[in-house]
Amino acid sequence: MPIPKPNYTPPFNITRASHAVLHVKDLAKSRAFYVDLIGFIVSDEDTDALYLRGVAEACHHSLVLKRGSEPRAECVGMRCFSEDDLDKAKFYFDKAQLPALWVERPHQGRTLRVNDALGAPLEFCATMERKPRLVVSFKDHHGAVPQRIDHFQLLVPDVQHELEFYTDLGFRLSEYIAADGADTPHFVFLQRKGNPHDIVFAPGAGPRLHHAAFSIPESYLFFYVCDLAAQMGFAENVEFGPGRHGPGHALFVYMRDPDGHRIELFNTHYQCMDIDDEPVRWDTSYVGKRNWQLPARAMWFSEASRFAGVEPREPGKKGAPMTLEKYVAAE
Amino acid sequence: MPIPKPNYTPPFNITRASHAVLHVKDLAKSRAFYVDLIGFIVSDEDTDALYLRGVAEACHHSLVLKRGSEPRAECVGMRCFSEDDLDKAKFYFDKAQLPALWVERPHQGRTLRVNDALGAPLEFCATMERKPRLVVSFKDHHGAVPQRIDHFQLLVPDVQHELEFYTDLGFRLSEYIAADGADTPHFVFLQRKGNPHDIVFAPGAGPRLHHAAFSIPESYLFFYVCDLAAQMGFAENVEFGPGRHGPGHALFVYMRDPDGHRIELFNTHYQCMDIDDEPVRWDTSYVGKRNWQLPARAMWFSEASRFAGVEPREPGKKGAPMTLEKYVAAE
Amino acid sequence: MPIPKPNYTPPFNITRASHAVLHVKDLAKSRAFYVDLIGFIVSDEDTDALYLRGVAEACHHSLVLKRGSEPRAECVGMRCFSEDDLDKAKFYFDKAQLPALWVERPHQGRTLRVNDALGAPLEFCATMERKPRLVVSFKDHHGAVPQRIDHFQLLVPDVQHELEFYTDLGFRLSEYIAADGADTPHFVFLQRKGNPHDIVFAPGAGPRLHHAAFSIPESYLFFYVCDLAAQMGFAENVEFGPGRHGPGHALFVYMRDPDGHRIELFNTHYQCMDIDDEPVRWDTSYVGKRNWQLPARAMWFSEASRFAGVEPREPGKKGAPMTLEKYVAAE
Amino acid sequence: MPIPKPNYTPPFNITRASHAVLHVKDLAKSRAFYVDLIGFIVSDEDTDALYLRGVAEACHHSLVLKRGSEPRAECVGMRCFSEDDLDKAKFYFDKAQLPALWVERPHQGRTLRVNDALGAPLEFCATMERKPRLVVSFKDHHGAVPQRIDHFQLLVPDVQHELEFYTDLGFRLSEYIAADGADTPHFVFLQRKGNPHDIVFAPGAGPRLHHAAFSIPESYLFFYVCDLAAQMGFAENVEFGPGRHGPGHALFVYMRDPDGHRIELFNTHYQCMDIDDEPVRWDTSYVGKRNWQLPARAMWFSEASRFAGVEPREPGKKGAPMTLEKYVAAE
Repeated sequence: MPIPKPNYTPPFNITRASHAVLHVKDLAKSRAFYVDLIGFIVSDEDTDALYLRGVAEACHHSLVLKRGSEPRAECVGMRCFSEDDLDKAKFYFDKAQLPALWVERPHQGRTLRVNDALGAPLEFCATMERKPRLVVSFKDHHGAVPQRIDHFQLLVPDVQHELEFYTDLGFRLSEYIAADGADTPHFVFLQRKGNPHDIVFAPGAGPRLHHAAFSIPESYLFFYVCDLAAQMGFAENVEFGPGRHGPGHALFVYMRDPDGHRIELFNTHYQCMDIDDEPVRWDTSYVGKRNWQLPARAMWFSEASRFAGVEPREPGKKGAPMTLEKYVAAE
Repeated sequence: MPIPKPNYTPPFNITRASHAVLHVKDLAKSRAFYVDLIGFIVSDEDTDALYLRGVAEACHHSLVLKRGSEPRAECVGMRCFSEDDLDKAKFYFDKAQLPALWVERPHQGRTLRVNDALGAPLEFCATMERKPRLVVSFKDHHGAVPQRIDHFQLLVPDVQHELEFYTDLGFRLSEYIAADGADTPHFVFLQRKGNPHDIVFAPGAGPRLHHAAFSIPESYLFFYVCDLAAQMGFAENVEFGPGRHGPGHALFVYMRDPDGHRIELFNTHYQCMDIDDEPVRWDTSYVGKRNWQLPARAMWFSEASRFAGVEPREPGKKGAPMTLEKYVAAE
Repeated sequence: MPIPKPNYTPPFNITRASHAVLHVKDLAKSRAFYVDLIGFIVSDEDTDALYLRGVAEACHHSLVLKRGSEPRAECVGMRCFSEDDLDKAKFYFDKAQLPALWVERPHQGRTLRVNDALGAPLEFCATMERKPRLVVSFKDHHGAVPQRIDHFQLLVPDVQHELEFYTDLGFRLSEYIAADGADTPHFVFLQRKGNPHDIVFAPGAGPRLHHAAFSIPESYLFFYVCDLAAQMGFAENVEFGPGRHGPGHALFVYMRDPDGHRIELFNTHYQCMDIDDEPVRWDTSYVGKRNWQLPARAMWFSEASRFAGVEPREPGKKGAPMTLEKYVAAE
Repeated sequence: MPIPKPNYTPPFNITRASHAVLHVKDLAKSRAFYVDLIGFIVSDEDTDALYLRGVAEACHHSLVLKRGSEPRAECVGMRCFSEDDLDKAKFYFDKAQLPALWVERPHQGRTLRVNDALGAPLEFCATMERKPRLVVSFKDHHGAVPQRIDHFQLLVPDVQHELEFYTDLGFRLSEYIAADGADTPHFVFLQRKGNPHDIVFAPGAGPRLHHAAFSIPESYLFFYVCDLAAQMGFAENVEFGPGRHGPGHALFVYMRDPDGHRIELFNTHYQCMDIDDEPVRWDTSYVGKRNWQLPARAMWFSEASRFAGVEPREPGKKGAPMTLEKYVAAE
């Protein structure tokens, strides 16, 4: 399958990844992880929810934790530019026979809820309550000093389908992985905001949320947040890294929260907004080789957060990534 | 004068600050400064010009140094999204009675040249020759490891005029400084690419180019590049900083190149692309207070690069910034 | 005057700079500065005193702040290796007709108090109450994350006299500044612990305590502590730097506490303990040139903490260092 | 077995770990690894040897690579304070019936060669040819910017024996690991220079050289040197880390050179020179738990460099450390 051509005149204007909504079983434990360890700023909290933002964010939240009976992802949130874009989105999804509903979300402006072509729940808003940007409020900096949300990664049973769906919405492909010699990408990085990713699709049983990613400002903080994790009893929550990505190029560390939801902390990406920024291709064989860090454990590839009410489907063809387990067994 | 409303349907789509073109008297000396000290990547060079890019840039150049008899800025370059936008730009400027000319520029696609409302020379292109992005080619990293161009600052005799002109072009005001109690901004930060600045206007005899700014990735590198500067005989070229900005919030250091052109190295800005991102106001009195670094020397406020063939005009009203000279005299 | 030969068989074994004792007018203000800003660990406190240590120290204190009516330094403290060395010290000073007294000091073992040849008050102990070393207790890291005390600098009216006195005690000269072409050092760096300085003597009215220096672990923290200082209202307390030293080579920042006592934060020195480590000579003219940072203000050269009960004497010959005031005036 | 009491009046004065001498099969490959990747300074080289030092070292070498037919360690070098100490050492070893020989070593002063109680080859010198200290010669900084040698780790069949032997020589125990509830240390960290280690003994077939360790100045450089390693084709040489140590507390990364010799890069240790610095005890069970990094691979525990001409002996009792292989198998 060929790579679809970018759509420079999308039906409505999505500007960026906006927020993740997660269900957690114990808000106090989640607070210890996200606030006391990672360093998110608490915008609001009550007995049922915790609204968090990064220090460089002036929007009310980029991460919402809701008390729930099961660890689930509720949706991934995208920002549209204007109210007008929300109306255009409603019109677009209705026409595409994807039921789009106006929903009430605290601290957000008008919000449209829809499931994407493979069932992944999305919500769109154009405005959010404003909060002080604390990027130079150094007294409030803690842990990894998360700056802002950057992107989501989803496991999906049909990456090509998502690639086409999101390309239609105006997302541009920045990087992709394809089998050696093949044309069809099976791992795609898509963006709206002008850096490599707002949403990433990898093959796997899904749709499930693999991770939400937040940027951090200094190499030093990768070590500091891991050190603090170990001291706070979260050593086992450091799942993969620190290490260096191939696609996207950033330093990363993946952590699992107390419910098993995964977040990525990474330092910032390159800028990518020119019409002549062609998608970067990576061969599967190249990506499969170890970088200086050891490969990820099998669970990093297979485990992800189910979306509430969405039954994952298995992909037609299963991948066989190089896992840490295989790597050490091969020696 | 009130702040003009943003124009969300601009006449053509400018996406970002693209490149600066400077005239220098001795390319070898400039190369020592920009390549051996700062760490720019040489995309091309001949006896008359040096084309430089940052390690995170895949475009051919973001800084062009041309051999010239006098140290002058030739123009500031902006990227438009598409060829179509260039044609719309041509139409727009013609209609506005600002003569816009198609010019030939090596390694750039079709390029439109125009002087802005106050005479500052601009050029626009939509494409540029592509070069490898070296962001993870660590062997090529050197000096401050400049990532990419970020913005320009110009001194102009009439900031309000520029604010209105660039707002019409679709630039959004991200931050501004105004006299205490007054409405009219006299120092404005304008953006297209989704972080605080692509172009900044400060009051002064002009139009003159105050500086071009390039992002660097780690705090550590501010010290390393200054240390290297001192060892290489460029101690006096470190003009101001390292220090912390008020508006924009970044860490910075300003350096003067061998011809006196000024560049800023800074770490990255916050994201700023939502419709509800209101301009941040700073009072003159607040900005005038010293931060932890001492105030800038008088020359930082008054000296800037003249544009070739453009006679600077004095502003109607002169500012009286707190300079280092005043600060130490007041003690 | 020639440089005295090192004494490798000293009368008693001093191992390192141990602690500074300062009188402050308002312990709450001092606590805000030293604990909330700089990040010292509080080992003990009561209404009359605050005992502080760095995160890498397992001794009870390296900085003692006592409530007093005037900002004074009480003494500089040195560690001897053993109790036996304290007895030898007592014998040595008695013989040298420098009255040495056994004094009671909370949290310290047996302590000997003496004034040096020029009247600077010293105290020696061999043991101190032990406290947990918090170098990997990341939850307790804050501000500049001070690691440990490193050295003291004193202004004295007769540097040569101190050089001879401390050389007799076994201190080794690591670096020194001398007038171009002259033999006599007028600024000397002396060490016992195997890095360049435990005590430094500079010419000036004295003896007065110019500063106590504490090591910090990362470049990043120079910026963070300055940023935090500005946010906490301590911008004016950042007196000089961040910058790079000539002698000793370290990055530094000098801060003034609420009483005007000066501390230096710096990153670590090189190792210097071999018999063939010859003192490094610096010419006055070389040191007087600006490094990448601007020169220090005149007050950095002239102001220092008086020792309680010790009347400073003027040096016979006054220096004329390059100050920031002179530097900006010369432009 | 109890911990032996420190010997504060040693038979001769050893001051610090000085240098490692390694046999390598291909000096060009070793140069690529140690100079082009790690960043050592070349003090001298010829067709048979490469003499390297860190940027903060003014001694001629801290690492000597000699061309050899097999990858072997030749010896570990220690610095004595004076020539007199070398004579005392000769006397001491002769009396202990350990044959000590005066040997010629290029660029070193008088050098004494001896095998320790378990056969590990040591050499002692008091002086070495002097070279410029390049700690602020930023142009010469590259790779991990190694500062100086810090310590050696040896695998030995009888740790207690070495503990007693080196305690007699004046080494002090700074930290040790012992089985839960047991008194006898089986992993010991010994020091002379005033920080936690100059030489470390771990249980294993030996004596073999497990690694030589060199300090690096910034967290950032752990990532940079690993990134550079991957780009230069040395990804597989990154054996363990970056990670955080329990004993000693430092950040570390272990790399294998082209011959399989192991080096550790780590950031600096705490100061440890007071008489009341008691050895820190770690329980085996505690050290066996994973920190935030995953456990080391089995090869990190078992592989080490044989000393030329010294046949390793198996320890009486084998350890069973938690390896990465066991860790991933247990999940």
